Amino acid sequence: MKHSFGSDNHSGIHPVILKAIEHANTGHQVAYGDDEFTAKAQAKFKQLFGTDTEVFFVFNGTAANVLCLKALTESYHAVICADTAHINVDECGAPERMTACKLLTVKTPDGKLTPALVKPLLHNFGVQHQVQPKVISISQATEYGTLYRPEEIKALADLAHAHQMYLHIDGARLANAAAALNLPFRAFTVDAGADALSFGGTKNGLMIGEAAVFFRPELARDFLYKRKQFMQLYSKMRFVAAQFDAFLSNNLWHQIASHANTMAQLLAKRIRQEAPKVHITQAVDVNAVFALIPEAAIEQLQQKYCFYVWNEALHEVRWMCSFNTTEADIDEFIQALKAL
Amino acid sequence: MKHSFGSDNHSGIHPVILKAIEHANTGHQVAYGDDEFTAKAQAKFKQLFGTDTEVFFVFNGTAANVLCLKALTESYHAVICADTAHINVDECGAPERMTACKLLTVKTPDGKLTPALVKPLLHNFGVQHQVQPKVISISQATEYGTLYRPEEIKALADLAHAHQMYLHIDGARLANAAAALNLPFRAFTVDAGADALSFGGTKNGLMIGEAAVFFRPELARDFLYKRKQFMQLYSKMRFVAAQFDAFLSNNLWHQIASHANTMAQLLAKRIRQEAPKVHITQAVDVNAVFALIPEAAIEQLQQKYCFYVWNEALHEVRWMCSFNTTEADIDEFIQALKAL
Amino acid sequence: MKHSFGSDNHSGIHPVILKAIEHANTGHQVAYGDDEFTAKAQAKFKQLFGTDTEVFFVFNGTAANVLCLKALTESYHAVICADTAHINVDECGAPERMTACKLLTVKTPDGKLTPALVKPLLHNFGVQHQVQPKVISISQATEYGTLYRPEEIKALADLAHAHQMYLHIDGARLANAAAALNLPFRAFTVDAGADALSFGGTKNGLMIGEAAVFFRPELARDFLYKRKQFMQLYSKMRFVAAQFDAFLSNNLWHQIASHANTMAQLLAKRIRQEAPKVHITQAVDVNAVFALIPEAAIEQLQQKYCFYVWNEALHEVRWMCSFNTTEADIDEFIQALKAL
Amino acid sequence: MKHSFGSDNHSGIHPVILKAIEHANTGHQVAYGDDEFTAKAQAKFKQLFGTDTEVFFVFNGTAANVLCLKALTESYHAVICADTAHINVDECGAPERMTACKLLTVKTPDGKLTPALVKPLLHNFGVQHQVQPKVISISQATEYGTLYRPEEIKALADLAHAHQMYLHIDGARLANAAAALNLPFRAFTVDAGADALSFGGTKNGLMIGEAAVFFRPELARDFLYKRKQFMQLYSKMRFVAAQFDAFLSNNLWHQIASHANTMAQLLAKRIRQEAPKVHITQAVDVNAVFALIPEAAIEQLQQKYCFYVWNEALHEVRWMCSFNTTEADIDEFIQALKAL
Repeated sequence: MKHSFGSDNHSGIHPVILKAIEHANTGHQVAYGDDEFTAKAQAKFKQLFGTDTEVFFVFNGTAANVLCLKALTESYHAVICADTAHINVDECGAPERMTACKLLTVKTPDGKLTPALVKPLLHNFGVQHQVQPKVISISQATEYGTLYRPEEIKALADLAHAHQMYLHIDGARLANAAAALNLPFRAFTVDAGADALSFGGTKNGLMIGEAAVFFRPELARDFLYKRKQFMQLYSKMRFVAAQFDAFLSNNLWHQIASHANTMAQLLAKRIRQEAPKVHITQAVDVNAVFALIPEAAIEQLQQKYCFYVWNEALHEVRWMCSFNTTEADIDEFIQALKAL
Repeated sequence: MKHSFGSDNHSGIHPVILKAIEHANTGHQVAYGDDEFTAKAQAKFKQLFGTDTEVFFVFNGTAANVLCLKALTESYHAVICADTAHINVDECGAPERMTACKLLTVKTPDGKLTPALVKPLLHNFGVQHQVQPKVISISQATEYGTLYRPEEIKALADLAHAHQMYLHIDGARLANAAAALNLPFRAFTVDAGADALSFGGTKNGLMIGEAAVFFRPELARDFLYKRKQFMQLYSKMRFVAAQFDAFLSNNLWHQIASHANTMAQLLAKRIRQEAPKVHITQAVDVNAVFALIPEAAIEQLQQKYCFYVWNEALHEVRWMCSFNTTEADIDEFIQALKAL
Repeated sequence: MKHSFGSDNHSGIHPVILKAIEHANTGHQVAYGDDEFTAKAQAKFKQLFGTDTEVFFVFNGTAANVLCLKALTESYHAVICADTAHINVDECGAPERMTACKLLTVKTPDGKLTPALVKPLLHNFGVQHQVQPKVISISQATEYGTLYRPEEIKALADLAHAHQMYLHIDGARLANAAAALNLPFRAFTVDAGADALSFGGTKNGLMIGEAAVFFRPELARDFLYKRKQFMQLYSKMRFVAAQFDAFLSNNLWHQIASHANTMAQLLAKRIRQEAPKVHITQAVDVNAVFALIPEAAIEQLQQKYCFYVWNEALHEVRWMCSFNTTEADIDEFIQALKAL
Repeated sequence: MKHSFGSDNHSGIHPVILKAIEHANTGHQVAYGDDEFTAKAQAKFKQLFGTDTEVFFVFNGTAANVLCLKALTESYHAVICADTAHINVDECGAPERMTACKLLTVKTPDGKLTPALVKPLLHNFGVQHQVQPKVISISQATEYGTLYRPEEIKALADLAHAHQMYLHIDGARLANAAAALNLPFRAFTVDAGADALSFGGTKNGLMIGEAAVFFRPELARDFLYKRKQFMQLYSKMRFVAAQFDAFLSNNLWHQIASHANTMAQLLAKRIRQEAPKVHITQAVDVNAVFALIPEAAIEQLQQKYCFYVWNEALHEVRWMCSFNTTEADIDEFIQALKAL
């Protein structure tokens, strides 16, 4: 297959991550998280996010999101999110199936919630006939490749807390956000008031692994049972832990994420310069480029390249870059685009 | 850590399996199972179990079991199993949480169901006040390390089908069973009338990966949505598929499983010869040895070796062997046992 | 309390219905629906809707809706409804909790879905990442007191069936609709292509009781278990059945519903004539009047009369009439309104 | 139909209860429990059980049980009960479906749990692989018509509390128990340490209605949402409340329950005297007689009388008496029995 611009999970395993798996494959280790690799990776998270942090590894992003939300809610609660949120459109109803919460969705221009957009949904508290809003869930970076500034997240966290609600961040691409903002992870998560975080690994070069992160221990009470019951307890957990340990060591995460971001920005720049008829629809804050191209061009380009049509009605497409996208890949793609 | 007799999942990744992961780590692949590695692994399963077979990869054994049962049941159904079944005792209620079915459990001497044990539960069909029995679920090998002969499985399948029910096999250690029985997988699964199978990988040297297998396509209808909604869809699926492909190639599965079985039999033989006060409680059909030892000895031995107490009241312990248990490990363990 | 315009369930039991309960209170009857009163009421439903009809009595409207939807869906399905639908706003998430389906909501001017409004949601069929649309659920009459013509329902049913979907009608006020349309029940339900119907009793003078109605027997397969498991099986079912029998005999339903409708129309007429500053916002098709009144007036009027503010931002209120609303009640209310 | 010995819910409505419904049918009342009848009935419960009591009306016994258990548990908890408990055998898996908890069942000779029977299940606390015991649920009177003494309940409550667990009582026939024990309700519920109670009405002459009762307010936190979401919120709640008010006034409950108990004791006495071949298998503490009769006799007797075979293998049958069983009914039944 040609280079895929379909998703950052079309890339494989970053070589350093693969080495970490090999390195962890020595001798016996107790299963289910009581091993030394898990302890080490957990310590890394506490370093990054503070000592009150509790971190739990799970298999995929849907599980990280669902288990974070489950820890924060009862079945009669509601979760407020953008209508473009991954939890709303790309998880086959897993959040509803697993938490039973209703998702209250908000239309946004760029995938970002704001207090003004959220406030109209903050009513009916105390009325037994209606679901009770309990969580504001945002994605950082968003599904549109846009970013929240720390103060924007803080404003949402403050709004949530003022209503005895929580702020959850879907950070499937948190590393891309941190690299783009040039800020430490904690600046726009725990320090901005977030309560829970889905920390993504798979889209940034891990073979497998995501983390459910809680910034106050009481939110993680009994989480072990929830993870197990939701079928997300990995027996040979050392192999996920070792990947996260490597990812968070020696700035590997930054190298991976900033490279992907840079490639997307290069792609956008060259499109603007060389294919001006292609309209880029969203700010290219991280590693995604959203663009409008003619319907006929979509089909032709998809014969060579894998990518997704984001909005069929508008002919809006998404091109993702990853840790192993090269300048040559971009160049070749631009040529193909220009040839249409 | 010393060699662990705690579980076959305390071992790491078999070297050939690790090589297969590395080998699959070349270039981009479409995510979520539409890749060439997945196609190849699926074809291997069809070769082994017949062309009507549908196979789906999931993350862990609990998920394989739960999703098999979910595919066969509605919420008002019941699943009949041994009271020692993994689905009953070691999955933190995941089967009930995810399928909503009641488990109807049966006491057994050796972890094995028989038609005589099951029949008393086959009543109340058609009565709206009672859950409706729909699945007989057995483990092959059982949690007690014992085995069903093909004809024993056939008898249970016939009983199930006579009541419009299904037979499910929890095959977390199916390879150990096949090696011990010296039979092809299909002889005691599809050919014995089984409808669905959890095919285990992780306990036999895979880094991660289990398979939900259905022997009639109609049972797998809409399974893709169920797997996704139950948070078991792996984006970089090629890396699980490649492991299964390697496992099922060149008799690797047999080599792994028969080695583990042989080590357990060696352990049992030496115990009988050299530590006759240790009473072995179950047939050593596969890779587990169950034994009664004095309470004081348990504690002392656990200071050196990791293993589980299976029945606290009886002081019954379990010692598991795996692909990387060596004769030297056994010898050292026997010495430690004799020293007590 | 003064006459309530709060809801048609603020009224008590219609005297004829109460007589029917008394009449059924003679001697012993087998429980759980195997009694002669239930048989008689079921026969009445078959008379009205056709011999293929299957009817099941439940306790309340939420249960009728949820159980209808449950019978038509799997957990990975989606239900399309107006964002004002009772199932979306007034059932505390019971549909999601009990069916696990996502509700896909549509903004409407008048509470009514149309094919044009629904079509944009009919996509992603066959994509494992997304919930699969399976039911279009409409309310007849709507929560805004508006009505579908039979051909409008037919168009939605045809659209549903063209996509292997179902049409469900929330008929909490179906009698009001039938009376207003001057059509038999079946003309705008089964004959218009509906698959399942929640048939309301409580809002039309019954003490308690709703019915889940299916127009093809295969949709009701195993429904008995679902009703029981969802805690909606009534032991002394004769007392709900007897109410429905009375309701559907001697045109009692028509008398009750048309009276309520007439009172609402009288109320609307007098408002238009005598309180022209009150803006009526919806067609008064059945027994509800929606109107905009100044915020200050709401508060004053609520000191005397019970009614609900439908839209706090707009100061839109709802006034309901019922079987025991009298012309004098209307007159008194108009005086109070004028006095403000 | 002849007098039914099938169940105490085969009887209809006690005349005083029916009068109470009629009496409540005057004028409008706010719906969903904010009415004066509900307030009055709630006050009655507080009088009987103490001012910390919170009471919520629901439709049926399954719902009372399920909602009590739901209020006390998370999905990874387990509920310990007798294997003959109504929640285990007669609710079609509703407890598992709605709470997701596993039921851990105990064999008993007489339907009664004891600390000795429960203790072996109190293990695995803190182990993530296993469900966590959280509730001991007993029935008073039991499904076998037997009774706990207050001190027996106290012992179970103490055991529960020593493990941070709760004691729940299924009191579908609590009135029969109180009458038989000649004790106030609170002596063997709240004063014996119970945390939650399902208080039955339907089997004691109510048309419809059960109550979920909590003895500490914090256990009822957010219960309103749970009741609504579980489809148990009754709009015209005054009609259930009025029944309970009447039931708990003027000792009506005692009159009803003690009559039913007396009739069962008369039946048992006459059987022992006049049909000595019929072996009564359980103590006749309340209103049920369990007996062994020849298989052939069952069939013949069922042609005239409705009753249930409790244990098909043993030919054990159950004969229930109720508020409207008469001495003449008993006499006639004895004659029929003797004729066989």
